[in-house]
Amino acid sequence: MTDRPTTPMLDRVSHPSDMKALSDRELRQLADDLRAETISAVSVTGGHLGAGLGVVELTVAIHAVFDTPRDKLIWDVGHQCYPHKILTGRRDRIRTLRAEGGLSGFTKRSESPYDPFGAAHSSTSISAALGFAAARDLGGDPGDAIAVIGDGSMSAGMAFEAMNNAGHLKKRLFVILNDNEMSIAPPVGALSSYLSRLYAEAPFQDLKAAAKSAVSLLPEPFQQGARRAKEMLKGMAVGGTLFEELGFDYVGPIDGHDMDQLLAVLRTVKARATGPMLIHVLTKKGKGYAPAEAARDRGHATGKFDVLTGVQAKAASNAPSYTKVFAQSLIAEAERDEKIVAVTAAMPDGTGLNLFADRFPRRCFDVGIAEQHAVTFSAGMAAGGMKPFCAIYSTFLQRGYDQVVHDVAIQRLPVRFAIDRAGLVGADGATHAGSFDVAFLANLPGIVVMAAADEAELVHMVATAVAHDEGPIAFRFPRGEGVGCEMPARGVPLEIGKGRIIREGARAAILSFGTRLAEVLKAAEALAQRGIAPTVIDARFAKPLDRDLILNAARSHEALITVEEGAVGGFGSHVAQLLADEGVFDRGLKYRSMVLPDIFIDQASPERMYQVAGMDAAQIEAKVLQALGVAVVGKRA
Amino acid sequence: MTDRPTTPMLDRVSHPSDMKALSDRELRQLADDLRAETISAVSVTGGHLGAGLGVVELTVAIHAVFDTPRDKLIWDVGHQCYPHKILTGRRDRIRTLRAEGGLSGFTKRSESPYDPFGAAHSSTSISAALGFAAARDLGGDPGDAIAVIGDGSMSAGMAFEAMNNAGHLKKRLFVILNDNEMSIAPPVGALSSYLSRLYAEAPFQDLKAAAKSAVSLLPEPFQQGARRAKEMLKGMAVGGTLFEELGFDYVGPIDGHDMDQLLAVLRTVKARATGPMLIHVLTKKGKGYAPAEAARDRGHATGKFDVLTGVQAKAASNAPSYTKVFAQSLIAEAERDEKIVAVTAAMPDGTGLNLFADRFPRRCFDVGIAEQHAVTFSAGMAAGGMKPFCAIYSTFLQRGYDQVVHDVAIQRLPVRFAIDRAGLVGADGATHAGSFDVAFLANLPGIVVMAAADEAELVHMVATAVAHDEGPIAFRFPRGEGVGCEMPARGVPLEIGKGRIIREGARAAILSFGTRLAEVLKAAEALAQRGIAPTVIDARFAKPLDRDLILNAARSHEALITVEEGAVGGFGSHVAQLLADEGVFDRGLKYRSMVLPDIFIDQASPERMYQVAGMDAAQIEAKVLQALGVAVVGKRA
Repeated sequence: MTDRPTTPMLDRVSHPSDMKALSDRELRQLADDLRAETISAVSVTGGHLGAGLGVVELTVAIHAVFDTPRDKLIWDVGHQCYPHKILTGRRDRIRTLRAEGGLSGFTKRSESPYDPFGAAHSSTSISAALGFAAARDLGGDPGDAIAVIGDGSMSAGMAFEAMNNAGHLKKRLFVILNDNEMSIAPPVGALSSYLSRLYAEAPFQDLKAAAKSAVSLLPEPFQQGARRAKEMLKGMAVGGTLFEELGFDYVGPIDGHDMDQLLAVLRTVKARATGPMLIHVLTKKGKGYAPAEAARDRGHATGKFDVLTGVQAKAASNAPSYTKVFAQSLIAEAERDEKIVAVTAAMPDGTGLNLFADRFPRRCFDVGIAEQHAVTFSAGMAAGGMKPFCAIYSTFLQRGYDQVVHDVAIQRLPVRFAIDRAGLVGADGATHAGSFDVAFLANLPGIVVMAAADEAELVHMVATAVAHDEGPIAFRFPRGEGVGCEMPARGVPLEIGKGRIIREGARAAILSFGTRLAEVLKAAEALAQRGIAPTVIDARFAKPLDRDLILNAARSHEALITVEEGAVGGFGSHVAQLLADEGVFDRGLKYRSMVLPDIFIDQASPERMYQVAGMDAAQIEAKVLQALGVAVVGKRA
Repeated sequence: MTDRPTTPMLDRVSHPSDMKALSDRELRQLADDLRAETISAVSVTGGHLGAGLGVVELTVAIHAVFDTPRDKLIWDVGHQCYPHKILTGRRDRIRTLRAEGGLSGFTKRSESPYDPFGAAHSSTSISAALGFAAARDLGGDPGDAIAVIGDGSMSAGMAFEAMNNAGHLKKRLFVILNDNEMSIAPPVGALSSYLSRLYAEAPFQDLKAAAKSAVSLLPEPFQQGARRAKEMLKGMAVGGTLFEELGFDYVGPIDGHDMDQLLAVLRTVKARATGPMLIHVLTKKGKGYAPAEAARDRGHATGKFDVLTGVQAKAASNAPSYTKVFAQSLIAEAERDEKIVAVTAAMPDGTGLNLFADRFPRRCFDVGIAEQHAVTFSAGMAAGGMKPFCAIYSTFLQRGYDQVVHDVAIQRLPVRFAIDRAGLVGADGATHAGSFDVAFLANLPGIVVMAAADEAELVHMVATAVAHDEGPIAFRFPRGEGVGCEMPARGVPLEIGKGRIIREGARAAILSFGTRLAEVLKAAEALAQRGIAPTVIDARFAKPLDRDLILNAARSHEALITVEEGAVGGFGSHVAQLLADEGVFDRGLKYRSMVLPDIFIDQASPERMYQVAGMDAAQIEAKVLQALGVAVVGKRA
């Protein structure tokens, strides 16, 4: 408690209604307190810091001007929502962010009425806000709809679709473009200020004229930021026009850290808008916290840290992360094969492809938040004779599913899908879980689907994908660190559709697909101590299945148990289909399929989430015993 | 043969290489011949007529100027590819279009080297072309990449993502915007012509200046088409700028039926372009065939027809189509419940929502080719208190999959998914098959997934969806006509998760999910004649399963066979999971799961496609006999 900042103004505000009596000067102070509280909270919890710091003033201004929760405020992605949570009745729990049982790191409908539409994936806010606006105009929930979306999220196709539709429907709607790519150099700030004042006085349709006349006020040449200023002028002249082309009224750019500007503009648009309105706000990610402002990623995501120094506490690790193993393996393969190229959808760091890009800048493509395009662009490169590795998290590959089916699988193009964050992911919770990829990929004709059991397997699967030129191939691997196994000098292509026996036993065979193998082996050891040493198989492939290995295991054991880090419909379902087709069930088989349960599992450590899912070693052991009909007298110590 | 048009110039061209020696005048004649041949062919086969007629000149011009197949020509969607097929070695098979064993109605890599990237779903061409361009620049296949994309397809988010990326990468790339929304009024044509001439002489960067100066040449006021002309001017001033904002050089608009303009512009851009180039071509859908030009949809899709009159041969039908039953049921429900709204992604006719829009124009939303937005917009309306019916074909719902997971299922929002074209669809072939929706939906926690067994069931499922307000619900139904069953006066909500026994029997129970029920009943009758009268169950729900009904059937029969119009991972997999969990397999059960096979099935009649899939009545009968171990001595008559 001694570390907590002094926040007298924030202490007066537990909900937005408490802000209505505050003066503009007090709102400014509230913003300062809110920034200090946000920094303090994230220093304890870790999480997304830079985005929240960039919208502190905007958060205060929106809640001061609009009437939440009657008005629906929708934060795109939600990385920036911590200050919003502090202002909307959740300050007492803000230091539980992203922990088990605590506040979500994103907005969440079930958490608060001030979160009318949850998020975590990007670029959904305009669609959702337009939905609220359309519902309102047909007699649904009343109130305004306000989407706050970053410039990165705005570049996704989905946001474009929503803008296009909003401009057509012409419903009253506010889209606040939170543009933090550009920092605000002084001349631009002055221009911004000029524009905003003009704007507050002039009718909307005169804004463009105002912008044009404002050009003459600019000092020339700018001492710093000349290029940026030019871009901004271009933005004024045509960026605004672009939004106007889509049927929006355009206001901006506005200095997102100048509370007076923000309040003036938001009050004006709230009073006057009749149709869709784009408010272009310039903010600085990490604003007001020097270590974040100085960081390359502007403090995007952080572990716990010391507030004074900004130094992060780092957990010691013995094993490399799967992400890094993937990246290093791909670089090693690309040294030998110049046809290898890599594609990421705005996640170069998250996928490890930043390392690949450092080594092969021309062969690495960051296409932006654009999974649909990423997949088909990869398919085009494959058709053009390259070996594309399309690296997308499991949960985000859902965005490119049709392209996987239509452009890759039907055409049998050899796109290599590197699927990171497969399975449960921890603090990011249910929205980021990679639960469905095996089910939605493995039933596509002609695709190969692998899962790495450990980091050494991942090295070999990268090599396998390089070697497989006959059609699409996917390999999945989890978030986090490997098991610390010995690493091969180089990857060796696996035989397609062949699993491996890890230990031979009797009565029960456990078929593992993916990194549950470590827990399966623990369970096997415990079972061995009970005198029931099972066979353990690493299936490696969900498609094609190792038919001989699986049928032999089924025929030579009393029980067969599949284990996978995915929902029903995936590996276990393909195994069941094989066993049914071959009549194996006719004669009786104690078959069980351990899959993720039929619930969205909330944030916790991955280990804890797998426990909730019923998939830790003890639960695997219990499942085997239950299948075999072995009564368990008391728990093992 | 007597009906075939006289086409002396076309007769000299079997491949684009034959066009290289032709004069511009001869190319014009070639286009006329090509139009006549296209009309003649489609009059025999049925199919997409209007789009092809709109690009006859463009097709000739591209093949005359570029060097296909070395240069990669990619037609978006592919509806417009028939003239292209005629010119690229496939004229001898053009009257087999869309028939079993014949030419595909779309471009297809396996069909011809002139189809470097197949299509059928919209808005993929720019991504693919950019992939070819990127591959080329890294030592892959040489040649230019040319995408031809319609103005409708250009509005999809995926196209925007690709444009955005192409502008960033700055690779030489041609995107031809085939804009057929605007017809070409004379003044505009003159302007167009002026622009094109200017363009062919002036360097690219002067085009905008040229456009501006061209404004003064316009006769004022226009006698006809003044509004359109103004839009076009706006397009010149800001439409082009919009593309320039995305990093493209912009040329246009060009009259897409003026061969001289087309040839001049394409020759110029081919010679000069260094980066991405947008060529804006105005065409008239159905051009040159009066019945198509006069039709509301400009002859978009047609059955076989008489060339002289344009009158289509219509097959007599006794039963209503599922699409119409859905639409009429929804209208009936909406008369009673004003919270019901409907959403389509540019398929008002295909989904039947044109009827809904006629009755409730304010409550029907056509959002354009934008499935991602359609789903989340529906989710927003649901959060705002409405009852949205989001009507999307199974195959196109793949485009909105992440939104179903992230915005609908995780938030348990009551969006109703009306999934038309479930299962195999006939002449549109593999790209339009609705094979995967049950697998990719039924493993989402909290969703309800139904399939209608006949058109009366569909009426009840619409009512069920209206009544179900606790979370998302989906119901699937096939393309085509119902079985002609008696129709209920109004829909009655089904009990969630309850199936129905259709006939009671012994030894084998057949669990049917969807419209295979008719074939299942035929199979049951045949089995009854063999003395093995099976139980037949209409499962109705893949999620939640009717546990009691299924477990009872499993325990009281020797064999259990599931049948569904979908791939592995769906209904049968959920049944297998239940049976495994409950230990039903321990004691032996002759369990079989009939799913779509692990191949993409080419176009044919739906009946024939299901035969290929192994799912007609005889094959269901055989599967039951095989499961029961009953030897079949000879086939039934």
